[in-house]
Amino acid sequence: MRSKIYLGLVHAPVYNRNGEVVATSVTNFDIHDISRTSKTYDIKNYYIITPVDAQIELTKRIMGYWQDGSGKEYNENRGEAFERTLLAHTIEDAVKEIEEKEGKKPKIITTSAKIYPNSISYKNMSEKMFEDDEVYFLLFGTGWGMIEEVMESSDYVLEPIRGTATYNHLSVRAAVAIILDRLLGEK
Amino acid sequence: MRSKIYLGLVHAPVYNRNGEVVATSVTNFDIHDISRTSKTYDIKNYYIITPVDAQIELTKRIMGYWQDGSGKEYNENRGEAFERTLLAHTIEDAVKEIEEKEGKKPKIITTSAKIYPNSISYKNMSEKMFEDDEVYFLLFGTGWGMIEEVMESSDYVLEPIRGTATYNHLSVRAAVAIILDRLLGEK
Repeated sequence: MRSKIYLGLVHAPVYNRNGEVVATSVTNFDIHDISRTSKTYDIKNYYIITPVDAQIELTKRIMGYWQDGSGKEYNENRGEAFERTLLAHTIEDAVKEIEEKEGKKPKIITTSAKIYPNSISYKNMSEKMFEDDEVYFLLFGTGWGMIEEVMESSDYVLEPIRGTATYNHLSVRAAVAIILDRLLGEK
Repeated sequence: MRSKIYLGLVHAPVYNRNGEVVATSVTNFDIHDISRTSKTYDIKNYYIITPVDAQIELTKRIMGYWQDGSGKEYNENRGEAFERTLLAHTIEDAVKEIEEKEGKKPKIITTSAKIYPNSISYKNMSEKMFEDDEVYFLLFGTGWGMIEEVMESSDYVLEPIRGTATYNHLSVRAAVAIILDRLLGEK
């Protein structure tokens, strides 16, 4: 079916480089690049997840500029990219919203540089998405990654993108692009 | 072989939205994200191409912060990402440097939302890269794309990333990530 795929960028709870649980800042490029990628791959909604109200306000202001302000006159398709971008305070809030919209709980998919007992290949995950009728919520972490509790409670963990590479430090924006292409792109 | 693959981000000559030939600005995320993606996919050198000396100076300063400055202490793998990032004033300068290093001229590969007589699929291009002994230079445009002369004189033009999508406005950072994964990623 692949018509009920949601994406979330998690700014909290995530680890910082010392392993402490923190909230990271929303960056302008996370809003723009991931909204554009989500729209191009026909994601139903892209949730920017942050508990910080000031960050939510700032993000809304940036998107508003492109949707209503002079940004729209300058580049109309940029505003279009934000049509499906939403904000949520927590992962749980976003899950609840999706459940209300779809009438069923989304399956949570995460990504990791490690292998978990619930790890799945891109090919298998892609087949599921195209063939079954489930709602899927793909979560990406910022900072040094989502906390263990989220990873362990997710339904599927995607394999590392570059299992064989010696250097493997993609930006979250690049990781989102590659993963959406692998799962939902032209075969 | 796939061991002689170079990548270039072209800030000039490109079109602006009115079809005029201009030089765009280097953005901080073009430096970071594309250096990280290039390193992860084992690109030999990533060339940031701009004729503007002030932009070259700024880019060197940003990279220097992560390679030598306090950025290195904060996050060592970020500096590593820049080990293969170089600057060039023009496409021709970069081509000349690559030719001197490799002892032969690189084949130029570009990407476009249009189909050209020299268009090639990702699968065919990937096979060439893994099987033959050529030097390849993948060029990505900024702004509203590279000028026609560059497109027409390139050896190969890759097919549009999302041939079937109604919205197709990926950031150049996302496009680089997806294309390197399609050409050089795990099969």
